[in-house]
Amino acid sequence: FLSLRPGSLAFNPAAPRRLPFNSASDVLHRAATINPAPRRSRLWRARTRVASQPPGDIDESFGGAVPSYRGSLVVPAGDHFVRQHHTSRSGASSFFAPPFSLLGQGALQRLGNVVSESGAKRCLVVSQTKHLRDEDEKDVLKRLCKELFDAGTDAFIFSDVELNATTENVAAALLMAYEYDVDSIISAGGGSAHDVAKAVRALYRNPEQDAVQELVGVDEIAAGWIPAVPHFAVSTCMGACSALTRLAVITDPLHQETLEIVDWRITPSVSCDDTLLMLEQPREIIAAAGVESLAHACEAFLSNASTPVTDANALHAIRLLSSYLRAAVTSTPKDTKALDMINYGMFLAGVSFNSAGLGLSHAIANALCAKYINLPSSELLAVMLPHVLEFYGEQSEEMNDDAAELFVDLAEAMGCPKTSSPASAVKCVVQSVARLVSDVELPQTLSEVNARQSSTIMRIDDVPEIAAKAMCDCVPGVTSARHPTLGEAENFILQAWRTSKCGECGDAFIVDAVAKPEANETKKNETWVQRYNWVGSDYVV
Amino acid sequence: FLSLRPGSLAFNPAAPRRLPFNSASDVLHRAATINPAPRRSRLWRARTRVASQPPGDIDESFGGAVPSYRGSLVVPAGDHFVRQHHTSRSGASSFFAPPFSLLGQGALQRLGNVVSESGAKRCLVVSQTKHLRDEDEKDVLKRLCKELFDAGTDAFIFSDVELNATTENVAAALLMAYEYDVDSIISAGGGSAHDVAKAVRALYRNPEQDAVQELVGVDEIAAGWIPAVPHFAVSTCMGACSALTRLAVITDPLHQETLEIVDWRITPSVSCDDTLLMLEQPREIIAAAGVESLAHACEAFLSNASTPVTDANALHAIRLLSSYLRAAVTSTPKDTKALDMINYGMFLAGVSFNSAGLGLSHAIANALCAKYINLPSSELLAVMLPHVLEFYGEQSEEMNDDAAELFVDLAEAMGCPKTSSPASAVKCVVQSVARLVSDVELPQTLSEVNARQSSTIMRIDDVPEIAAKAMCDCVPGVTSARHPTLGEAENFILQAWRTSKCGECGDAFIVDAVAKPEANETKKNETWVQRYNWVGSDYVV
Repeated sequence: FLSLRPGSLAFNPAAPRRLPFNSASDVLHRAATINPAPRRSRLWRARTRVASQPPGDIDESFGGAVPSYRGSLVVPAGDHFVRQHHTSRSGASSFFAPPFSLLGQGALQRLGNVVSESGAKRCLVVSQTKHLRDEDEKDVLKRLCKELFDAGTDAFIFSDVELNATTENVAAALLMAYEYDVDSIISAGGGSAHDVAKAVRALYRNPEQDAVQELVGVDEIAAGWIPAVPHFAVSTCMGACSALTRLAVITDPLHQETLEIVDWRITPSVSCDDTLLMLEQPREIIAAAGVESLAHACEAFLSNASTPVTDANALHAIRLLSSYLRAAVTSTPKDTKALDMINYGMFLAGVSFNSAGLGLSHAIANALCAKYINLPSSELLAVMLPHVLEFYGEQSEEMNDDAAELFVDLAEAMGCPKTSSPASAVKCVVQSVARLVSDVELPQTLSEVNARQSSTIMRIDDVPEIAAKAMCDCVPGVTSARHPTLGEAENFILQAWRTSKCGECGDAFIVDAVAKPEANETKKNETWVQRYNWVGSDYVV
Repeated sequence: FLSLRPGSLAFNPAAPRRLPFNSASDVLHRAATINPAPRRSRLWRARTRVASQPPGDIDESFGGAVPSYRGSLVVPAGDHFVRQHHTSRSGASSFFAPPFSLLGQGALQRLGNVVSESGAKRCLVVSQTKHLRDEDEKDVLKRLCKELFDAGTDAFIFSDVELNATTENVAAALLMAYEYDVDSIISAGGGSAHDVAKAVRALYRNPEQDAVQELVGVDEIAAGWIPAVPHFAVSTCMGACSALTRLAVITDPLHQETLEIVDWRITPSVSCDDTLLMLEQPREIIAAAGVESLAHACEAFLSNASTPVTDANALHAIRLLSSYLRAAVTSTPKDTKALDMINYGMFLAGVSFNSAGLGLSHAIANALCAKYINLPSSELLAVMLPHVLEFYGEQSEEMNDDAAELFVDLAEAMGCPKTSSPASAVKCVVQSVARLVSDVELPQTLSEVNARQSSTIMRIDDVPEIAAKAMCDCVPGVTSARHPTLGEAENFILQAWRTSKCGECGDAFIVDAVAKPEANETKKNETWVQRYNWVGSDYVV
């Protein structure tokens, strides 16, 4: 099959096409002349507003406003199952999903048929294989192209997507789409390949917008834009969920900015998650992706913008991930059924946070990743999640009793013994997560994450800066169930630096979905004692 | 606003259009000359195959084959949460959903914005208000048109859809779409308005297909067809769920046939379910729609084609409907939160069966509705559901233990006391459903349904015919967890005729989502005694 650099492309005079520019550099030039944020969206304004607050002094009136579908900053109902979520609010809510998802063993093979049935004849394939040493990933691309070939579809491969997708990648892939007059787009990879494909699709034959910068914000793609071509997204990198979301994150190296596009119309037409692709992955990748998805699901469930629809998906994701992750990671030979269930759990978690948003674990992990490039965000999430859950579960004035009661449902989904006491539910949830993280051998403290790295090193002096940055992270921050003060945020980053919530794992509840109700009944009323197991400053620079 | 009969339409020479025919009668003439099933689909062939079996002798090899996405008759994984579903199978699965759903209070108001943001300027509005005396429905249409008007979109209203959508309705609405050169379609109503809109959208600017007959089957819309216009579906009739599915059922009066179109590409672009529209509905409508949705969710959960994704939706639907339906039906004044939760529950149930399919309650209700026109199918489902669930839950050679264990999850979702015994789970599930049906004052036996009718009357002599027909109902029949023999089917229709499963409601488990685990623990090992409370032949003709 064909793999071409945009620079080497010759025009194809036979193909009817509309080229609003002549080369990738032309696009880049035009992009550079555009104001970095020419159409400041609500999200953008909201972020500026939060950022302009003194750290620790989050505007309460803003706390309830979620960037959702354009024309509505109203927070959706936020009602959960039997229990009321946060305060009683009313209003319409939005739920987003790909119209067609292919899941499970052999999904990739089925995709070939689906693409050809869609009438695709000339397909732009977006991947990052050029920047990967990963032979598996290349192998996936080969298999995909074979399926396309068998189905009678030509593939034009853009393999240059970088690890962090850039505006240059988008411009080059867009040029290639016009050059080859494609009638469909396939992306194969993790987040960045899908993100580039989403941006290319939003710009391809869009008469009103030419550059990624114009798309930034929530639903800022031109009114009246309908996708000109279908987009098929094949996930090869577990847990990222970009194959099913309405989000694209593109880095603008010219302005040193991260551009976030949120628009339901860039949700891929068909998402494809094949369990067989997970079979070849190393255990630590599966473990990290599984816990990352657990963080997606927990934070979506506790989000301010959750709805019964996102709850349904989040709770079942938590059930599947809690029940099957150990087996998926530790079994030899690989436990196909467990991997299948983890694959479905990841999908459900993604569907949930795609509409409900995320919370503080992600805000902090994002801040850490921004400060220390190449730090593995899924490991950071694994460390932060128990601390953040405990913070959410604390009975405080800000959190009313109903909110704490959500932990009763959360605990049940995690297989904790049935309880109606929020306090014991919180305790079991925190310990279950910490125990799972420990069992799948992920790091339990930030200092441990630090120690696993060869070069980049976190510094404890940076904690105040990280905390302040995390509190300005609008996207997960706004939907967060609770907003910490700067002091509280610093405090629990420091805790996460040194302390594992698994300190009591020795006598933790056994996480077992078929647990007997009688077990551990005596511990119900114990208060949750925070034991600080100082790892010492061995790892801290 | 404008309401025109197709016969009275004058051509609009200014509008650019492609008219493959000159009038509705031309379309009908062309449709009539087409073989009723010109392109016999797999579904069609499968049905013929089942129908050609002697009743009661279902082909076992077909039992596992589910009409799913074209190119695959493989049954998806069918794995549930912790428990294995039916036999252990592997394979890819499909999940379908609208890309964007608006739900909750005020969703209709939000839709105006969404339509105008989509760039729609000339919108075909499909409704059945002409055939309705219901002023509420007309009021919804007025409000909708006001939202469109405010958003700058012209509405062209086709209000002639009959109670059962016909090929004539489709032809006339299609003609109107071409005449007015519409760029979008809105349907407002119950199933038939959405079904007509889906068929019109599939044919509008479709260069390869002209008539509904050509679309019949699973994914039989031409390969390469991409919808030319977006479709916004506003549900005004609860429980039908047609606003979010990939199904359309159109009656062909010329050939006296029911045409079923199943294609993911006719899923509406945006579905809209506004809780506020439920506020004006009478209690018995809410009750019937709620129990109909419960039947959707239970049968989807037990379906052969279920996946963890459909399970997530089905289980949460069951939780919401079990917890809130009584309050939604009985509270005075109307309990807005309960109605909201029922609305979400109906959506989740629809999303679930849209991919997982249905079971025997629907097969039997369909057969009864086909025999006795205008019988209320939701009441028939309410009667059949407990009987069918009991049949599914019986330990038999055909159902392995794992399958029966699914009832443990089902019972938990219904708020039954936690149990690990499938037998007591089945008992609690059957009684919970029967109790709910009784509490919301729906009929509990077929003879009671009979008695509530003024004109049409079921005859007990017809039971063998109904049973045989139900077993030939391919669509819910194939995904049914268990296939009865003809004798078994007759038997439980007869049971449903005379006996309420609520016979033991007096000492039934209390359905309470926050039930104490200890309650009713002593009843755990009781065997399920079928008590036949013969209502007598008072109602039976």
